[in-house]
Amino acid sequence: MSDNWLPSLITDTPAEGYELAVKLSRVAIKLIQPDAAKREQMRPEYAEDANALIASSHIVATHFATVAAANNYWKG
Amino acid sequence: MSDNWLPSLITDTPAEGYELAVKLSRVAIKLIQPDAAKREQMRPEYAEDANALIASSHIVATHFATVAAANNYWKG
Amino acid sequence: MSDNWLPSLITDTPAEGYELAVKLSRVAIKLIQPDAAKREQMRPEYAEDANALIASSHIVATHFATVAAANNYWKG
Amino acid sequence: MSDNWLPSLITDTPAEGYELAVKLSRVAIKLIQPDAAKREQMRPEYAEDANALIASSHIVATHFATVAAANNYWKG
Amino acid sequence: MSDNWLPSLITDTPAEGYELAVKLSRVAIKLIQPDAAKREQMRPEYAEDANALIASSHIVATHFATVAAANNYWKG
Amino acid sequence: MSDNWLPSLITDTPAEGYELAVKLSRVAIKLIQPDAAKREQMRPEYAEDANALIASSHIVATHFATVAAANNYWKG
Repeated sequence: MSDNWLPSLITDTPAEGYELAVKLSRVAIKLIQPDAAKREQMRPEYAEDANALIASSHIVATHFATVAAANNYWKG
Repeated sequence: MSDNWLPSLITDTPAEGYELAVKLSRVAIKLIQPDAAKREQMRPEYAEDANALIASSHIVATHFATVAAANNYWKG
Repeated sequence: MSDNWLPSLITDTPAEGYELAVKLSRVAIKLIQPDAAKREQMRPEYAEDANALIASSHIVATHFATVAAANNYWKG
Repeated sequence: MSDNWLPSLITDTPAEGYELAVKLSRVAIKLIQPDAAKREQMRPEYAEDANALIASSHIVATHFATVAAANNYWKG
Repeated sequence: MSDNWLPSLITDTPAEGYELAVKLSRVAIKLIQPDAAKREQMRPEYAEDANALIASSHIVATHFATVAAANNYWKG
Repeated sequence: MSDNWLPSLITDTPAEGYELAVKLSRVAIKLIQPDAAKREQMRPEYAEDANALIASSHIVATHFATVAAANNYWKG
């Protein structure tokens, strides 16, 4: 992957920080399974299975903790 | 999603912080599966399956840790 | 839920902090599945299944980390 | 449970801190399933199933992080 | 393993920090299962099973939190 | 177990810290299932099952976070 997919953990708002957390949770999937066709094949399992969605949401929570700390919780 | 769904991590009380944690755990589901009809279809799995409920509660715990730190644990 | 179910994260002792962590892990279940009858129906799964108990204990551990930090680890 | 099962998170050594983490991971099980006979019945699942053991080890890891922080990593 | 597989947690950019997190998540597998042939045999399970990929992404998230903190979130 | 299995969380290098994290993840298994024969019987499940390996790697990640913080990320 290009080295500038993640220039910084700093975001303007908490909502943007949350979106960054979602992005961070997705990139690992691409790095572990670089074959886009195989990922596409697994897509229904991700997006249409409740347990997979819940597990994905947990990853977002873990990354959001990191991003929020990086931004000092956007406390100005 | 609108950018103002998450204006701040700061809440007046710990209970409001907990509700924010629940909201944060739900938003990831919407971002990963944007199709409301498909989410509705999976709803029984979320709300009527003990393992899914327990997994969801764990996500809330992870987000609550972030929100509590952001609020300096509401220690005044 | 009433807003005063969680007035503070501060407790007198570590043991009370642990009980608060147990409470925090239970509240998410109520918020996600507000129907008490349905929760009651799932109760055997929670309390009589080893995997569910272990998963619940993990949630308590995550909340206990938050409560312990809030109390500065009760170091006086 | 008696209120003095957890007088403090402070231990003399890292190894004692680890044992405290094991204890903390077990107490949640007792609080959620107070019936000792039912717990005994589930015991083989805990101690003789690899997945349950691994999950239990993760809970210990989460509690050990808390205990280690409380003790400032025993850096004395 | 050679002792210099991990000379430092410090990286120049967040993207390199993320790659280090991926590496950290893989090394444990090698240490627990040192037999390369057996690991190769399990490879389809890792890279072609959605649940395994999601679980792997969670490990990356946990390590990324550590690497990000080590780098003071690359805040310069 | 002997009390000196864990004299300190401080290590000279990040790689040694990682090995300590692996050790910390294994000790819980021994404390919960002290019977070496039963552990040996479960060994294939640990080392030859992808999901068990992934779950074990996650525990290592959690312990590595603790060890890295204890060592101030080996920043010298």
